[in-house]
Amino acid sequence: MYRAKCTLLGRPLPNDELEHQRLGKPTALAVFASDALSSTAYASEEIIRALVLGGIGLAAFNFVLPITLALVAVLVILMFSYRQTIKAYPSAGGAYVVTKDNLGLLPAQFAGVALLTDYILTVSVSVSAGVAALYSAAPALHPYRVPIALFFIAIITWGNLRGVKESGKIFAAPTYFFLFSIAFMIIVGVARALTGDLHAVANETMPTVTKQAGIFLILHAFASGGAAMTGVEAISNGVPAFRPPEWKNARSTLMVMGSCLAFMFIGISWLAHIIKPIPTEDKTVLSAISTAVFGTSPLGHAIFLIIQGATMLILVLAANTAFADFPRLASFHADDAFMPKQLTKRGHRLVFSNGIIALALCAAFLVVIFSADVTHLIPLYAIGVFTSFTLSQTGMAVHHIKEKEEGWRAGLVINALGALSTGVVTIVIGVMKFMHGAWVIILLVPIMVYALMRLNKQYEHEHDELTRESREALARPVLRRHVAVVLVGDLDSSVATGIQYARSLRADGLRAVHVAIDPARADTLREQWLDLNLTKVPLDIVHCPDRRIDRALIDVVLRETAQGDTEVSVILPRLHRHRWWHQLIHDHTANAIARSLEGIEHVNVTFVPHRIAEL
Amino acid sequence: MYRAKCTLLGRPLPNDELEHQRLGKPTALAVFASDALSSTAYASEEIIRALVLGGIGLAAFNFVLPITLALVAVLVILMFSYRQTIKAYPSAGGAYVVTKDNLGLLPAQFAGVALLTDYILTVSVSVSAGVAALYSAAPALHPYRVPIALFFIAIITWGNLRGVKESGKIFAAPTYFFLFSIAFMIIVGVARALTGDLHAVANETMPTVTKQAGIFLILHAFASGGAAMTGVEAISNGVPAFRPPEWKNARSTLMVMGSCLAFMFIGISWLAHIIKPIPTEDKTVLSAISTAVFGTSPLGHAIFLIIQGATMLILVLAANTAFADFPRLASFHADDAFMPKQLTKRGHRLVFSNGIIALALCAAFLVVIFSADVTHLIPLYAIGVFTSFTLSQTGMAVHHIKEKEEGWRAGLVINALGALSTGVVTIVIGVMKFMHGAWVIILLVPIMVYALMRLNKQYEHEHDELTRESREALARPVLRRHVAVVLVGDLDSSVATGIQYARSLRADGLRAVHVAIDPARADTLREQWLDLNLTKVPLDIVHCPDRRIDRALIDVVLRETAQGDTEVSVILPRLHRHRWWHQLIHDHTANAIARSLEGIEHVNVTFVPHRIAEL
Repeated sequence: MYRAKCTLLGRPLPNDELEHQRLGKPTALAVFASDALSSTAYASEEIIRALVLGGIGLAAFNFVLPITLALVAVLVILMFSYRQTIKAYPSAGGAYVVTKDNLGLLPAQFAGVALLTDYILTVSVSVSAGVAALYSAAPALHPYRVPIALFFIAIITWGNLRGVKESGKIFAAPTYFFLFSIAFMIIVGVARALTGDLHAVANETMPTVTKQAGIFLILHAFASGGAAMTGVEAISNGVPAFRPPEWKNARSTLMVMGSCLAFMFIGISWLAHIIKPIPTEDKTVLSAISTAVFGTSPLGHAIFLIIQGATMLILVLAANTAFADFPRLASFHADDAFMPKQLTKRGHRLVFSNGIIALALCAAFLVVIFSADVTHLIPLYAIGVFTSFTLSQTGMAVHHIKEKEEGWRAGLVINALGALSTGVVTIVIGVMKFMHGAWVIILLVPIMVYALMRLNKQYEHEHDELTRESREALARPVLRRHVAVVLVGDLDSSVATGIQYARSLRADGLRAVHVAIDPARADTLREQWLDLNLTKVPLDIVHCPDRRIDRALIDVVLRETAQGDTEVSVILPRLHRHRWWHQLIHDHTANAIARSLEGIEHVNVTFVPHRIAEL
Repeated sequence: MYRAKCTLLGRPLPNDELEHQRLGKPTALAVFASDALSSTAYASEEIIRALVLGGIGLAAFNFVLPITLALVAVLVILMFSYRQTIKAYPSAGGAYVVTKDNLGLLPAQFAGVALLTDYILTVSVSVSAGVAALYSAAPALHPYRVPIALFFIAIITWGNLRGVKESGKIFAAPTYFFLFSIAFMIIVGVARALTGDLHAVANETMPTVTKQAGIFLILHAFASGGAAMTGVEAISNGVPAFRPPEWKNARSTLMVMGSCLAFMFIGISWLAHIIKPIPTEDKTVLSAISTAVFGTSPLGHAIFLIIQGATMLILVLAANTAFADFPRLASFHADDAFMPKQLTKRGHRLVFSNGIIALALCAAFLVVIFSADVTHLIPLYAIGVFTSFTLSQTGMAVHHIKEKEEGWRAGLVINALGALSTGVVTIVIGVMKFMHGAWVIILLVPIMVYALMRLNKQYEHEHDELTRESREALARPVLRRHVAVVLVGDLDSSVATGIQYARSLRADGLRAVHVAIDPARADTLREQWLDLNLTKVPLDIVHCPDRRIDRALIDVVLRETAQGDTEVSVILPRLHRHRWWHQLIHDHTANAIARSLEGIEHVNVTFVPHRIAEL
C-alpha cells in the first residue's frame, strides 16, 4: 500500500522541506489566477443571456459594455482593497483570518463557510463548463460527460496531492496559453473593427428594439456577470505560498492578475457589443466572437479550434485555484476548532491531503447530482464569494480604525468603499438570483455555521474535560481486580494465540466466551473444548438469537464490572493478512465490538494478532 | 444510531422468525415477475429498431411477429426446463446450485458471476428506462435524471432492507397494474383490428421495401429481443421464499408468469405489426401503439397516460427482482468461500443486507457512469443470463443422466433441448452484440471468475493454517517477559486512564512513549512529565520528522521483541464519545496504528477507553 502511495504521489517529504515548497511569481500567477481569468469565458455571455431573456431585442447589446465597466469598477475597488489586506496580513490573510481578527469568530465562520461553498462550486462549475467545451467540439463524448468531469476532478486531485509546486508546473502552460489566445483575439478584433472590417452578425429573428430596458433587468444582468469576480480573493488567501518577500510578490501578482482580468473582460464585452452574437444552446458567445474575428478560412478555423481548446483547458484547470485554497482555508477553521482536526494534518507531500480529498468529493457529488450541467449550477455561484468579500473588507476597515498604522486614513477609505460596494453587489445577487438557486446557499451557509459552532462547543468541552485534574488523575491507584475474557469463534490457532497472551497477563480471572448465533455450532465447540481439558480457561457459551454479538458481550463484561473495582480486558484474536484485499474479505466484527464496549468504563479491548503465513 | 436503524427498517427480527418470512403466490408473482414482464415494454421495440436500422423499409414489420414467436418458443422451452429444475432443487435451485452440483465448482462460478452481472444490469437498465418514461412525460425533469434514478435505487434498497415480505406488499400493486393495463390495450387493439378499425400509422418517409432482409439482420434483431427473457430464472432461484409446498407453488407461479409474458410479448408485437410505428428518439413503440389503439380523444389520452405511468412503475420496480435474487445468489457463492463471507450474514431484518447494499452500489455506479442512458446499457444485457441458462440446463441434463429418477428420460429431453437452444441464443447474442458492448461482459466474467478462484484459494489456505495443529497450539506456554508501552499524545486524563490500566497488568516493564512530530511540543511534554515525578513510568520521546507515527512505534516495539520470548502490550488511550458525529471529528490514528502493529508477532494493541461526560 505504502509503496503504491509513493509511486502515485512521489517520495514522502519530511517536515523540514515545508519551507522550500514556494512559488515564483509567474508560477503563482498560473496557480492562483486560472479561476479569475477563466470566468471571462462565460461572464460576458451570462450578461448577454440575462439581457436577451428580458426581451429587449438587439438593444440588449447596448448594455453589455456599461455593465461590464460597472463590474470592472468593482474589480478595481477589490484589487486595491486586497492590496491593503495582503500587506496587513502577510502570513495568510483571506476573508477568514481578517474577519476573525477584526469582527470576531462568528462572522469569520460565515465568511469562511461562504467561501468554502464557493470553492466547491468553482470546481463543479469550471470542470462542467470545460467538459461542455470539449463535447461541443466532439459531440460523441456528450453521453460520457459525467465520467469525463469526474476524471478531470481526479486528475486535478492527484496533481494537488503530489504537492503545490508540482501542481504549479502542470498548470502554468494552460493558463498562459489561454491568456495569450484571448489577448490575440482581442487585438485582432480591435484592429479589424478600427479598419471598419468587423460587422455585426446577421440576426434575422431578433428585432432591433422591442421595449425599454428596466432597472430590474439591468440589475439581473449585473448579478449574472458577478461570477467574473470569483477567484480574485485567491491570492490574499495564499500569501505564504509566495517566495519571500511574500507580501510584495503577492501584491504585484494580484495587480497583474486584476489587469489581465479587466483587459480580457472589457475586450470580450466590447467585441460582443460590435458583433452582437445571440447565445444559443450549442454555440457560446466566445466561440461566436472568435468565428467572427478570424473568419471561416482554414487558418481562421484552426485559430478558432485553438481558442476553444485553450478555453476548455483553462476552465478545467480553474478548479485548481479552489484546490490551492480550500484545504488551506479549511485548515484555518480546524486550527480554531471549528472544523474536524484532521483538516490540519499535512499528508505525505506536506499538503493538506484531507482538505483536498474533501473538496474533490463535494465537487464530484455536485457534478453527479447536476449531471455536469453548468446552467443549473451557475445561480448558486458568486453569492458566497461576495459575502466573504463584504465581511473581509468590513474587517479591514475596522482594522484601520483599531490599529491606526501609517496611512490608515487612506486605507480606511479604500476598504470602506470595498465593503460598501461588495455589500451592495451581494444583496443584488441574492435578490436577483434567489429563485434561480441562490436560496440553496442562503439557506445552507447559516446551517453550516450552526453546525460548526456546535462542533466547536464539543471540542472545547472535550478539551476542558481532558485537562481538568489530569495531574491528579495520573496518580490514581490500580484497581483491585483484573479479569481477562477471550472471545472464541472457532477452535483454531488464532484463539490459541489469544489465550497464550491472556495467560501472560496473570489476571485474577481468565475465561473464554463464545457468543452463539448457531446453537448447533456452539454444542460442537463445547464438546471440543471439554476434550482439550483446558481447566485453567473455562468456556462460557452465551446465546444470542438476535445476532447482536456486541450486546451479548456487554452483558458479559457488565457482570464482571458489577463486582466493583475491576479492570476487564476483552481479548479479541484477529487474523493478520499481508495484502490489503485479504483484509476486505473478512468482516470487521472485531472493530464493531471494540466500538460498542468502549462506552463502559474500565473495559479495555485488546487485539491479539495472529499471523497467517503467506500463500 | 441503533434507534435510527430501527425507525428506518422496523424492529429487529430474531433468528427464529426466519421461517415466517414467506410469500403467497400472488405476492411471489409480483416480486419475481416484474423483471420478466417489464421487458415487454421494450423487447418488441428493440426488435423493430434492429430491423429498421437494417434499412429494409416497412418490410421490417413483416419480421416482428416471426422473431417474437421464435423467442416465445425459446421461452416455452425455458419454462418447461425450469419446471424440472424447481422440482429437482426445491431448496433453492437456480443456475449456481444446479451447475455446481452437476458440472462442478468452476462452471458454477461462471454461471453465478454471469447471472450476478445481469442482475446489476437489470437494476441499472430498468431504473434508467423507468426514469426515461417519467421524463418523456415531464421533460422538465430531464436534467435531474441521474439523481432521480439514484433516488429510485435508494427507495428499492430501503424496501429490501426492511425484508422480503414488506417488499412484496410495496411491489404487488404496480406489477398487477401494468399487467392489466397492457392486457386491456391488447384486447381493445385486437377487437378494433378484427372490426377493421385499426390501421397502420402514416409513414411518409419510409419506403415499403428497400432490399431483402439477410439472415444476419434477422439474427441481430433476434439477439436484440433476447432481453425479453431476462428474469425468467428468478423464481427457480427463490423457491425457498414460497409458502410450503414450495416447489409446487413455485412451479405454478412460473407457468403463470411465463404465460403472461408470452401473451403480452406476442400481443404487443402483433399490434406493432398492424400499426407499424417507427421508433424515434422521443416516442417509444409502446406509447405509439397505445396512442393508435386508444386515439387522441380526452379519454384515449387519459388511458395513454395511465399506460405510460404503469410502464414507468413496472420498469423501476423490475429492479426489485434483482434485489430479491442477487443477495441470495451472492450468499451461495460466499457459503462456498468464493465470495466474501460477509455476504452470508443476515442483517437486522433477516435479509442479506450486505448483498443488497453491494447490488445497490454497483447499479448506482453504472447509472452514474452512463448518465442513466438506457441505449448505452442495453447491449451489455441478456448475454449473462443466457450464459447461466445454458450452464444450468446442461447441469440439469447431466443430473437426469446421473440420478435416473422417475421420468428422467422426458426430463433429459426437455433439459437437453433447453441447453441446446439457450446455448445457440448465447452465441447469437455474443456475436451480434459483441461490438456494441457485449465484449465488456465477455471480458469481465472470466476476470471475475479468476478473482473468485483466487479468493477461494486464500480462504482455503487460511482455514488450513488456522486448524492445523490448533490443539497443540492451545497448550503453548506463556512467554517469559511482558512489556507494556503506553502511547502518550498530550498530558491529559485519557493518558491517566491508560496508565492506570497499564499498571494493573503487572508487566515486567512499563513505560510511556511520545512520538514527536512537533519538537517544541515534545520538549514541553518532557518537562511536564518530569514535574509529575512518575518514577514508575518513564517517558521516552521518539522523533518522527516524516509524520509516520506507525513506523516510529514499530521501531519501539521491535527493540522490545528483539530481546526474545517477549509479549508486548501497546496501550492506546482512546476517547469515547456519545454521538456518532463526535467519532467522525477525531482522527483515526489509533486504528491505523493498531493495523500497522498487527504484522509483528506477540505485539498486542489495547484500546483503553476514556469516557467524556456528555456536554
